[in-house]
Amino acid sequence: MTKEVVIIGGGIGGIYVLRNLLAKKDAVKEGLHLTLIKREKSGWVSVCGLPFALRGWYGIDKTEINKPQFFLDQGVDFRTGSEVTKINVEENSVVTLRTGEVLRYDYLIIATGRKPAVPAVVEKTNLEGVYTFNNEDDARKIEAAMKDAKNAFVYGHGIGGIQVASAFSARGLKTTLFGRPPSLIASRLDPDMGDMLKEWLEKAGIRFILDSEKGITAIKGDGGRVKSVVIGEEEIPADVVVISMGKKPDVSLAKEAGIEIGEESHGIVTDSAMHVKKGRRYVSNVYSVGDCVEVIDGITHRPRLNQAAFAAVVQAKVVTDNVFSDIRGQLDLYSSYEPSLGPTAADFAGLLVGSVGVTSEAASRAGLKTVSGKATKLTKARYFPGAKPLTLKLIFDAYTKKLIGAQMLGEATVAERVNELAVAIYAGITAAEMRNMERCYDPSLALLIDVTIDAAEAAMGITAVY
Amino acid sequence: MTKEVVIIGGGIGGIYVLRNLLAKKDAVKEGLHLTLIKREKSGWVSVCGLPFALRGWYGIDKTEINKPQFFLDQGVDFRTGSEVTKINVEENSVVTLRTGEVLRYDYLIIATGRKPAVPAVVEKTNLEGVYTFNNEDDARKIEAAMKDAKNAFVYGHGIGGIQVASAFSARGLKTTLFGRPPSLIASRLDPDMGDMLKEWLEKAGIRFILDSEKGITAIKGDGGRVKSVVIGEEEIPADVVVISMGKKPDVSLAKEAGIEIGEESHGIVTDSAMHVKKGRRYVSNVYSVGDCVEVIDGITHRPRLNQAAFAAVVQAKVVTDNVFSDIRGQLDLYSSYEPSLGPTAADFAGLLVGSVGVTSEAASRAGLKTVSGKATKLTKARYFPGAKPLTLKLIFDAYTKKLIGAQMLGEATVAERVNELAVAIYAGITAAEMRNMERCYDPSLALLIDVTIDAAEAAMGITAVY
Repeated sequence: MTKEVVIIGGGIGGIYVLRNLLAKKDAVKEGLHLTLIKREKSGWVSVCGLPFALRGWYGIDKTEINKPQFFLDQGVDFRTGSEVTKINVEENSVVTLRTGEVLRYDYLIIATGRKPAVPAVVEKTNLEGVYTFNNEDDARKIEAAMKDAKNAFVYGHGIGGIQVASAFSARGLKTTLFGRPPSLIASRLDPDMGDMLKEWLEKAGIRFILDSEKGITAIKGDGGRVKSVVIGEEEIPADVVVISMGKKPDVSLAKEAGIEIGEESHGIVTDSAMHVKKGRRYVSNVYSVGDCVEVIDGITHRPRLNQAAFAAVVQAKVVTDNVFSDIRGQLDLYSSYEPSLGPTAADFAGLLVGSVGVTSEAASRAGLKTVSGKATKLTKARYFPGAKPLTLKLIFDAYTKKLIGAQMLGEATVAERVNELAVAIYAGITAAEMRNMERCYDPSLALLIDVTIDAAEAAMGITAVY
Repeated sequence: MTKEVVIIGGGIGGIYVLRNLLAKKDAVKEGLHLTLIKREKSGWVSVCGLPFALRGWYGIDKTEINKPQFFLDQGVDFRTGSEVTKINVEENSVVTLRTGEVLRYDYLIIATGRKPAVPAVVEKTNLEGVYTFNNEDDARKIEAAMKDAKNAFVYGHGIGGIQVASAFSARGLKTTLFGRPPSLIASRLDPDMGDMLKEWLEKAGIRFILDSEKGITAIKGDGGRVKSVVIGEEEIPADVVVISMGKKPDVSLAKEAGIEIGEESHGIVTDSAMHVKKGRRYVSNVYSVGDCVEVIDGITHRPRLNQAAFAAVVQAKVVTDNVFSDIRGQLDLYSSYEPSLGPTAADFAGLLVGSVGVTSEAASRAGLKTVSGKATKLTKARYFPGAKPLTLKLIFDAYTKKLIGAQMLGEATVAERVNELAVAIYAGITAAEMRNMERCYDPSLALLIDVTIDAAEAAMGITAVY
C-alpha cells in the first residue's frame, strides 16, 4: 500500500523534507504519496532572502524559488491557504483540516515554524503601517509602507530587527532601532562585539535607543495610519513600524495533541532522530523539524531553540534518512541530529557578523569559566585587493582550554571562518593547538600569521608569559 | 652572561626566529645577543610576494618588508652578503664565517633554506635570459628580461612554475610551460583537478607541453642571449626561460657538521621541538627550521618536505618557545611542531587552487585505500555579488571514513575552506559527520546546502543508497 506522508508547514523545514522525499520517491516500491499543508499562498519561499529584497537588491517575487504548481506537477498534494486543526497521534494517525477533511498518514512531519512575539501595546493597535516581519506577506506590506515613508521605527535588536533597520536606512529612511537590554544580538554576541556592530550601524545612519528604562508606552496614529511611537517622554516620528522581538515556536497543534513541549525552550521535544515525544515514548512515525523544535546546545547541553535555516535543513535530512530507513527496513540509513553549535553569519549594512558556540554570558550562565582572546587584523596584506580588517574573539573553557565560542566582525571571510571554527569547537581543539596549527598562505589570499593565531595567543596570555 | 643566538639564513624561517626572539628579548635577564647571517644583500623579503610583483601588481622593492638597518637599529648583528663555512656542533659551539671569523653560540638555528634544482642541459648554458626563480635577485633578472621579451618558456609545473607562467602570460608574453609527468602540481592535486586548472590556464593563453617523452634537449642562444628551447623535434622561441623544477633543501653545512639528513626527504632531521640530530642524540641547543627541514606527513606519517612559508613560521614559533623554555628553565613554555597536513592555497591567473592532506595518489602510495566525492556549486546564490563556482574534492579513508585530503578550485573562499578542512582532517571528522554538520547561512554569504555537503554525500554514495 502506498505510504502516506503528511507535512504540516511549508517553511524551510517542511519544504526540505518534501524535496528530499520527492527526490528519492522512486526507491519506495510501495509508492510514496506526499501531502504538504501550509497557511500561506506561496510555494517555496526563501525567507532568509526577504531582508535583501527590502534592501532593494531584488524584488520580493524573486524569493519564491518554486511556485505551488512546481510541486503539484510532481504529484504532491501541495495545499496552500490551508490549515490543520487537529493531530490525532495515537488512535487514527490522522490530521483534520479546517474544512473537516481527515487525512490518514503513515508518517507525519510537524513543521509549524514560529510566530512573531508582539508586545501588548502593539497588539492593541490596529493602525496601518505597524507590522511584524515573519514571511513574504509581511515583507510586501513593509515594502508598500516604505514607499512614501520618511521615518522608520524597529522594535528588536536581534538579527531580524537589525536586518530590517539596515534595509530602511539603506533605502534612505530615518531609522530608529529600539531594544532592551542594551547589547545587540545578545544571544550571539558579547557586549564588546555588539558595541562594535552598533558603532558601524550608527555610521550607517541608524539611531539606537537601547538604554531606555521604559518600553513603548504608546503607538500614535493619524487617519488610521501610524505616525509616531512614544517611549517614555519621547515621541519618535514613524511612518512604518516593524516589530521584530523574536519568534516563538508555533506549537499549539502539537501541544493539543499531547506532544511534549520543552519547559525552558517552549519548543517541541524530539530525540536525535527528530521523533516527537508523547507520554513516556518517542513516536516512531511522527517527526518535527525547524523553528518549532527544541535542540540541545552543543556546549552547555541545555535545551534551547535554534531557529536557523540551516538547522532546519539538517533536521529535514535526518527525518528523510529515518523515514526511508523505516520504510525500507534498512537500519544503516538511519542518521541523527547532533547538539547544535548554532553557526551564524549575517550581513548588516556591509558589516559581516559571525558567531558560533556560546557567548561568554551563556557560558557563565551554564557555570562554565572562560578565558577569551581578541584580535583585529587585515584578512590579507594591505596591498592586495579585498584586504579588510576583521575582529575575532575566541572563547575557551578556562580549564580544558578547549574552544567553546567564537565571534567576529569584518567585511570579508566571515562565513567561512565561522564554519572553520564550528569544526574546531566540535572537535574540541585547544588554544595551544590552534596557535601552532598550520594555515594556508598566499599573500593575495591570507596573512602569514592570521588573526586566529593572534586571538588564540591573546587568550593564552602569551605576551604575559614571556 | 649574555646568551648568544646565531641564526644561519635570512629566509622566512630565520627571520621569524629573529623577530620572535627580538620581541621577547627583555624577558631574558642575562641579556640576549642575536646574530643573523645571510648570503643575500636584503633584509626581510616576502619571497611569496615575488610572483605578484612579476605579475605587475607592485614593484619588487615592495617585497622587502624590512631593510637590514631595521634590525641593526635594534641591536641585531644582522650580516648580509655573508656566509657560514663551518658549524662545529660538539666541541666549541661555534660557526666559522668565510672571512675566518669564529662566532660562539649558546643557541644555533640552521635556516639554510633551499636551492633550485637545475637540469644538466641548463647547468651547462651560460646564456643571458635563463634563470631560476628562488629569490628577489632572480625576480629582478626575470623582470628585466621580460621587458623586451615576446616569448617565455617555463620549465616546471608545480606551484612556482605555474605562478611564473601566469605572470608572463598576464604581461602579454606568449608563454609555454613544460613539465613531466603530465599532471599539474602533482604533489597537491589529483589529475582530474590538475586538468581543470590546466584548462583554465589554457584559456588564459598558456601553452602546455606535458606529454613529451623527451626532456629539453638544447637551449639555443644568439649573441649570448637565449633565443629558443628545443624539446625533441620542436624548437620553441624563448626570450626568457625560467627553471622552476622544485627546490632541494640546502643542507650542505649541516651535513658536513655530521647532522642527520633524511634519506627519503633529503631534509634535516629534527624532533618535534625542532632540535637537530647528531649521532644518537638530538642536540639541545641546535635547531633547524624552514625549507631545509624534514617534516612528518600528518596522514601517512612518512617523512617529507614541507617548503611552505607558514610551516616555517610555526616552526620558528616552536623554536622560540623552546629557546625561552631552556633559558628560563620554564618547561611549560615548551611547544612542539606537529605532523603536517600541508594546507596550501594559491592564485593562478584568477583561479584559486587549494589543497590539504594527501592526494589520492599519495594515499595509495602509503597503502591507504580511499573513497572520494566531488561536487561543483556556486559559493552563494547567483543573484548575490561575488557568487562564483567552486569544485571541491574530498578524500576519505575507505575504512575509517575519516577525511584525509581535500582539493578545490574556484574564484573565491578557497583559502578559508582549506583552513576549515585542515581542522576537519586534524580532528578526524568522518564523511557522515561532515554531511550532517551545521554551517552558517545567509543567502548573501553562502548556500543553504554548501558544496562541502554535496561532496561528502557523493563520497558516501548517498544517491546510490536510496
